[in-house]
Amino acid sequence: MYRSRPKGELDRDTLNFLSSMNIDNEIISYDIMGTQAHLVMLYEKGLLEVKPLKKILNELEILLQNPGKINRLGFEDIHEAIETHLVKKLGIEIGGSIQTGRSRNDQVILDVRMKARDELNNIYSKIISLIDSILQKAEQNLGSIMLLYTHLQQAQIGNLSHYLLSYSDQLFRDLDRLYLTYTRINKSPLGSGPVGGSTIPIDRERTAMLLGFDGLVTNSLDATSSRDTIVELMSSLSILMITLSRIAEDLIIWSTQEFDYVELADKCASSSSAMPQKKNPDPLELLRSRTTIVVGNLVTSLALLKALPSGYSRDLQDLKLVFLNSLSIVSSCLTITDIVIGSLIIHKDRMKDAVINSYANSIDIAEQLVMQKGLVFRTAHKIVGSLVEMALSKNNASLSSLSVNEIEAVIKRTSVPIKAKDLLEILEQVTPEKVILLRSSIGSSNPDEQKKVIKSSKIRVQEYSDDIRKRKMLLNNALHNLRQVVISYTNKSS
Amino acid sequence: MYRSRPKGELDRDTLNFLSSMNIDNEIISYDIMGTQAHLVMLYEKGLLEVKPLKKILNELEILLQNPGKINRLGFEDIHEAIETHLVKKLGIEIGGSIQTGRSRNDQVILDVRMKARDELNNIYSKIISLIDSILQKAEQNLGSIMLLYTHLQQAQIGNLSHYLLSYSDQLFRDLDRLYLTYTRINKSPLGSGPVGGSTIPIDRERTAMLLGFDGLVTNSLDATSSRDTIVELMSSLSILMITLSRIAEDLIIWSTQEFDYVELADKCASSSSAMPQKKNPDPLELLRSRTTIVVGNLVTSLALLKALPSGYSRDLQDLKLVFLNSLSIVSSCLTITDIVIGSLIIHKDRMKDAVINSYANSIDIAEQLVMQKGLVFRTAHKIVGSLVEMALSKNNASLSSLSVNEIEAVIKRTSVPIKAKDLLEILEQVTPEKVILLRSSIGSSNPDEQKKVIKSSKIRVQEYSDDIRKRKMLLNNALHNLRQVVISYTNKSS
Amino acid sequence: MYRSRPKGELDRDTLNFLSSMNIDNEIISYDIMGTQAHLVMLYEKGLLEVKPLKKILNELEILLQNPGKINRLGFEDIHEAIETHLVKKLGIEIGGSIQTGRSRNDQVILDVRMKARDELNNIYSKIISLIDSILQKAEQNLGSIMLLYTHLQQAQIGNLSHYLLSYSDQLFRDLDRLYLTYTRINKSPLGSGPVGGSTIPIDRERTAMLLGFDGLVTNSLDATSSRDTIVELMSSLSILMITLSRIAEDLIIWSTQEFDYVELADKCASSSSAMPQKKNPDPLELLRSRTTIVVGNLVTSLALLKALPSGYSRDLQDLKLVFLNSLSIVSSCLTITDIVIGSLIIHKDRMKDAVINSYANSIDIAEQLVMQKGLVFRTAHKIVGSLVEMALSKNNASLSSLSVNEIEAVIKRTSVPIKAKDLLEILEQVTPEKVILLRSSIGSSNPDEQKKVIKSSKIRVQEYSDDIRKRKMLLNNALHNLRQVVISYTNKSS
Amino acid sequence: MYRSRPKGELDRDTLNFLSSMNIDNEIISYDIMGTQAHLVMLYEKGLLEVKPLKKILNELEILLQNPGKINRLGFEDIHEAIETHLVKKLGIEIGGSIQTGRSRNDQVILDVRMKARDELNNIYSKIISLIDSILQKAEQNLGSIMLLYTHLQQAQIGNLSHYLLSYSDQLFRDLDRLYLTYTRINKSPLGSGPVGGSTIPIDRERTAMLLGFDGLVTNSLDATSSRDTIVELMSSLSILMITLSRIAEDLIIWSTQEFDYVELADKCASSSSAMPQKKNPDPLELLRSRTTIVVGNLVTSLALLKALPSGYSRDLQDLKLVFLNSLSIVSSCLTITDIVIGSLIIHKDRMKDAVINSYANSIDIAEQLVMQKGLVFRTAHKIVGSLVEMALSKNNASLSSLSVNEIEAVIKRTSVPIKAKDLLEILEQVTPEKVILLRSSIGSSNPDEQKKVIKSSKIRVQEYSDDIRKRKMLLNNALHNLRQVVISYTNKSS
Repeated sequence: MYRSRPKGELDRDTLNFLSSMNIDNEIISYDIMGTQAHLVMLYEKGLLEVKPLKKILNELEILLQNPGKINRLGFEDIHEAIETHLVKKLGIEIGGSIQTGRSRNDQVILDVRMKARDELNNIYSKIISLIDSILQKAEQNLGSIMLLYTHLQQAQIGNLSHYLLSYSDQLFRDLDRLYLTYTRINKSPLGSGPVGGSTIPIDRERTAMLLGFDGLVTNSLDATSSRDTIVELMSSLSILMITLSRIAEDLIIWSTQEFDYVELADKCASSSSAMPQKKNPDPLELLRSRTTIVVGNLVTSLALLKALPSGYSRDLQDLKLVFLNSLSIVSSCLTITDIVIGSLIIHKDRMKDAVINSYANSIDIAEQLVMQKGLVFRTAHKIVGSLVEMALSKNNASLSSLSVNEIEAVIKRTSVPIKAKDLLEILEQVTPEKVILLRSSIGSSNPDEQKKVIKSSKIRVQEYSDDIRKRKMLLNNALHNLRQVVISYTNKSS
Repeated sequence: MYRSRPKGELDRDTLNFLSSMNIDNEIISYDIMGTQAHLVMLYEKGLLEVKPLKKILNELEILLQNPGKINRLGFEDIHEAIETHLVKKLGIEIGGSIQTGRSRNDQVILDVRMKARDELNNIYSKIISLIDSILQKAEQNLGSIMLLYTHLQQAQIGNLSHYLLSYSDQLFRDLDRLYLTYTRINKSPLGSGPVGGSTIPIDRERTAMLLGFDGLVTNSLDATSSRDTIVELMSSLSILMITLSRIAEDLIIWSTQEFDYVELADKCASSSSAMPQKKNPDPLELLRSRTTIVVGNLVTSLALLKALPSGYSRDLQDLKLVFLNSLSIVSSCLTITDIVIGSLIIHKDRMKDAVINSYANSIDIAEQLVMQKGLVFRTAHKIVGSLVEMALSKNNASLSSLSVNEIEAVIKRTSVPIKAKDLLEILEQVTPEKVILLRSSIGSSNPDEQKKVIKSSKIRVQEYSDDIRKRKMLLNNALHNLRQVVISYTNKSS
Repeated sequence: MYRSRPKGELDRDTLNFLSSMNIDNEIISYDIMGTQAHLVMLYEKGLLEVKPLKKILNELEILLQNPGKINRLGFEDIHEAIETHLVKKLGIEIGGSIQTGRSRNDQVILDVRMKARDELNNIYSKIISLIDSILQKAEQNLGSIMLLYTHLQQAQIGNLSHYLLSYSDQLFRDLDRLYLTYTRINKSPLGSGPVGGSTIPIDRERTAMLLGFDGLVTNSLDATSSRDTIVELMSSLSILMITLSRIAEDLIIWSTQEFDYVELADKCASSSSAMPQKKNPDPLELLRSRTTIVVGNLVTSLALLKALPSGYSRDLQDLKLVFLNSLSIVSSCLTITDIVIGSLIIHKDRMKDAVINSYANSIDIAEQLVMQKGLVFRTAHKIVGSLVEMALSKNNASLSSLSVNEIEAVIKRTSVPIKAKDLLEILEQVTPEKVILLRSSIGSSNPDEQKKVIKSSKIRVQEYSDDIRKRKMLLNNALHNLRQVVISYTNKSS
Repeated sequence: MYRSRPKGELDRDTLNFLSSMNIDNEIISYDIMGTQAHLVMLYEKGLLEVKPLKKILNELEILLQNPGKINRLGFEDIHEAIETHLVKKLGIEIGGSIQTGRSRNDQVILDVRMKARDELNNIYSKIISLIDSILQKAEQNLGSIMLLYTHLQQAQIGNLSHYLLSYSDQLFRDLDRLYLTYTRINKSPLGSGPVGGSTIPIDRERTAMLLGFDGLVTNSLDATSSRDTIVELMSSLSILMITLSRIAEDLIIWSTQEFDYVELADKCASSSSAMPQKKNPDPLELLRSRTTIVVGNLVTSLALLKALPSGYSRDLQDLKLVFLNSLSIVSSCLTITDIVIGSLIIHKDRMKDAVINSYANSIDIAEQLVMQKGLVFRTAHKIVGSLVEMALSKNNASLSSLSVNEIEAVIKRTSVPIKAKDLLEILEQVTPEKVILLRSSIGSSNPDEQKKVIKSSKIRVQEYSDDIRKRKMLLNNALHNLRQVVISYTNKSS
């Protein structure tokens, strides 16, 4: 319909290549609401008569309820399809007026921003729900001692609660990041025209208000051409996915028969078509791979925008595609992580056995040699290393089972100025079972530390929940109000 | 159906999350053919009775013609859906035998390889067709002199033919890369079992032959777990897209009113909903952005495989997704580039005007001062630079319009040991119009060089075309033969 | 020195492979200050005697002034090198005590955070300086009318000021993003131990205060193992670079002889070794390519962290490498962009000529036909399109030069209900020169809009400058105070 | 020195920003040899007198031996630095002649190609060496039975030899990929001039031969502007690194105390500054992270080239940077992997114990129920699943320890038509220890399969080694010959 300068129809292959119809299904309702707000403003500013206003608003209301009525064949995008529908239905003299003071360039980014804020609000709620599940598990597992790893090697003794809270803390930061972007995303680009604004005396602030925005993307060139806020979101989504992928990796490793610390609920586990004994953690594996899709989409968006000239270019259509894809993937991944963690089976006894059979209290022993027996740390480190070596050579015996003779041999070999008696005393005192109670630093594995964090985290969960509810309500109110305005104008006597 | 160890059904959200059904539509026919070949082999090896063989082959033949008959709801993938269909239709005693000596892990990569080789063969043909279009344009434009650019600044004088052939040469390399991978992709993984092979005395070479493969991926762990050949293809597709994106960028710039060297045919150009004067090169812009999607998919695949433990993991399902997406994108991009270039309108006069009004013969003048007047190049470079400066200051006058006095002034200022007369002689001789005929190096802008290349390139096009035809025929013959075997077995008297 | 369990020396190739010595040069001073703060705290908590305290503080002070004294050969990292230096210099009984209640795992991320906040503060200042340069140029160019582009095609008429402000607005968002992360980066991980905290009664809040941090990364597992805040920064740096790359691309295109809108100052332009007439915009090209390095570093960091198990892994060493690289690249790119824009030569006349010779007032004409003559927009769009076509066919005549006859012919052909007289009136009124004054929408190309934005932007620049100064002062004060404490303790009588 | 059109010096910050001096150290010797060959050709073609030829060749020979003599300060790149050196040393009339018929644009890609082919030849040798180490380990471990994993869950029984050969097969493909590119990289771009070739009658084939190239990159635009072959290499290097990262990941997991299948030699393992019991597999972790750097570099190169206009742009300088970085990383990673695998300690008993205590023979049991007892596979799969369930509930008893009563109970519950006696017979026959000997498919875990592969692989290793030696010799001969020519010309009487 817009073909003015180029003559004839688009080549069919080219049209298919250009068309964004598939992905536009996701923004169709926002597009219609945007047009309604625009028309209401035009009418209020005396730029549109009441008669065409009523007719178009009415027809748009029908399409909003039943978007299937829009013929999608032969169009490059949903904007063209809707205008063509209106022209066919209401005649050019009425339908031909919806683009006054507007262009597809401000329209499409309006739609994307409206879509994004809804998706974000859902994602916020899902993160909060996941944090809540983690906090519950953490509370239930204050006493579940387990090994902590560095380099995937047994490192220190901790507990599951401590581990879980490290991820609720990360998820809070993931949420913070996404949350702050809302103020940047919820600004209206509408009224920017193709690139340089309009000579029509439109009221950008009115349409922004009608559509529930907090303000404007002022500069019209910026509004139609920039996508930094979209990429910011795609980055924050990628970082969130990294968090989920790391949880997934830990749980995959812990689900092996060799670690055997946790087990996925049957409802989350896959089986094998070939190997009857299998119980596979497929959802966790897909959390890993979906992470890489979201990262791939981010790369697409950055490579796409690199050195893109200012002013709308068609490339931006594909940015919309990958952005909506990432939002959708992240949303489902949050749901699945929540289900998996909520239903996770913990093998507390296995975890405890692994602790008892480990040398992961070595650093604590060294520290207590410093604290109680006056060794410097590097020397303490050295002698405990030698004790471990001795214990390993005794068929992996526990450190506390070493005899006085053995200990004296180690002392002699290392020339460390300590008495065997003193060493023995520390070994008996700092056993794997008791060690986390000795931890005293803020944020350490001592369960008292976790209790504090759980308490403050629950408050944060509540505050976020309240604020999210408020955000959603503000949007709902605005769009409800738009609906009321539309209905009242539709019923106006001309 | 495979749920043996995990009890109960999968959680609904989890099932949706896990399911690859959408993308599996693209491999369904390959999956069925793979199963047919497997069954034929089992029968021939005495591992399956003729009765179940006939019934299953017959039912698979029905599904091949009408895949819509397969119930897709509630399954994680197409393999499970088909086996379930067969069991429902033919009973467990018959349908339950198709996985003997086989697993989904070798099955899925079999399907992907069969799909890939078909897609690749089409892509080869499309590259050849595009090269052919470029060669035709090059032949038509041997005399179209134009500016060549470095740093997007006017650099040397060349001609359009020379430019175009630089891209047919690149496309030949793109083709070479993809072409060689065929030998790696067309190997059968079938018969590798889940990871370690089978105790059933299957004949892997027989199924490979039935399905048109050139050999085996021997090691069963490698066959089910590696995806390097897929990533190799995704890399080669990315590099090909880079080539297309660079052509696109050149044409976008040349389509500006400021350059005005070329114009897209109307059937390829988009218009504006707002600005009536517009004729936008949208297909070219999408070539750029699609490039970044293919690159994003490559990044996904690399990040996905990074540090993935050996043995099939579910992550690989998402690799299939992005791989098939890239194949499809590249295929359509080749079509569009071919259409755009084939129908491109060349503004030869504009190109020539730009040449005449440029200083892009500067280097040639400098070179002739070396050749004919015995200056060293650095000195020649210096004096020509000063001449350009002088000409610029004279309201961008042409070099050949400089007067003897002006030239003498320049010689004096630069103290270059040359006579004004000699300089003038060279300036008159090395005019922008004539300069490419003076070029003598292999592969330079001299049209004689292009003629040679066009000739040899046409031969390469022919050779590739022949070979591609042969490749396709080999596959067709194999699968035709499989069909014949299936029919003959189906009709066998039990 | 730490080799306790593994015996013997590291293989030489392996040591080279593992060593982070090169990059550690950038964090050495932070490492020393961190150790000083840690020791001060240990002393104050009664965990270290005054004698060793004095000796170590004194030696560290020497190293801080002269880091070249540290032997770097044979160590995996700077932490080990410094401890070894201290042990050699002061004996094991003194030097061996610096790791009490500490580990390299909390130490290295402490150093990185201290380095990052300094680099960030510099980057903030540089962005502000760049914005300031842009605002100055914008103020000088309120009257520089020029074409605005979409799809790189002439779209609407605007002015340079409008263009420039679209980038100061983007840069403000880039700054906002980076600015908010400061609160997340300026938290202390020190005291987290290897992964699970310490049994030594250290005071994490005291060391945080001494080092100028705003608080703690509480959870010790999170503190040593997470890097989300680093990746957040690398994302924000990438997005900032995208902004710079788009400015660069515009200026590269505008610097072509064909556009000729701007020219780089000679001090920023490169020449050619071969082509004397060349003036190449190399710094702008490198802004583009450096963008892709920063993006590549981001990809590295995301791929590196994907599915990395919890707890410190050596992989994180390479994340440090790419992070510091990106900080350094961005810093220099901001400097260069500032220099290039500050010294940019604007060809106002060329810009204006291009405006006058364009049809980019088409949409404004169409809009005024709606406003003043009562056409619906789609019809107005159509008739203006036909006028452009007519003008193009008349050797690219201007729209205002069309004769009444010609206009009547167009009206007849398009059957648009308007009189030629009315059309002519609008064509005369809406000329390219006058059109931006007719623009009335907020954020449009009307210079009045830019004046408002320049005014408010200058206030923002001032506010940011003040706040950055405050931030820097807070850090300086804290570290100055640490120095004072160190000196007073060093001089303490034992 | 080249500053002709732009006046004055480059701004200092800008010069630092532009300079490629650091990285150019890696190509300096190639640059000098390239210049020598170019001069020899110029002389032979009568384009250069013998006197300047001798002097320049002589001076270049000095620089080749002692590149430190070249003043590096104040230049954008090494090409400019060398020409300036020659001019200073020999005067403009001699030194000013080296760029005749040449430009930095063909020169820099010449240097990169010469550097690349040397690096590649070393990388080929290193891959071959690594494959050889793997084959040796495989040969030593034909009898080392171990579990194979899918989804990181115990899947089937295999042996270490089978596992190792899956990676020698992958590495052969990695080698193939890189190997074939050699023919594309070893082509000379020299003589292409800045973009369009030269009017000087240079002999491109002569310089190509002197420098050991196999042919030309013919089209001068292509030769100076394309980098697809570089990106192809960076892709192949990335894929190779993926292979190494997956080996690393397996070994990291197998090195955990929980798996305990392997142990790094002490000379490859790191210790902890804090935890004395630690033995960390740091080199393996860095193989993972270096993979992501090489991938990041690939992304940089693709994003950099995306939509880059034809003709040399300065962006390509940064492509050189990341390319050389990737070559260097991959080279060291191959060395380290070879060291780690060559010295790896295998815990055969632990591997065997894990096999015996597993249910990983389930699929083999099911298969033998099909083979020997006539069940269909799906039914066999079901009953073995139930047996595993029964065994798990008996405190993880082995399948062969199930009593007749228990087996009958399972048969009853599943209604599978089989006798307990028959089931028992199979359970006793298909024990974990014996199962790999029953495997019969090509490429399965049966050690006979590995023997065949080891034999054929050793032949391939030999063939590659011979061919690599030949390749290196060809290059050496060519460059040795160039040296001879240079010396003979230098000594020529004028």
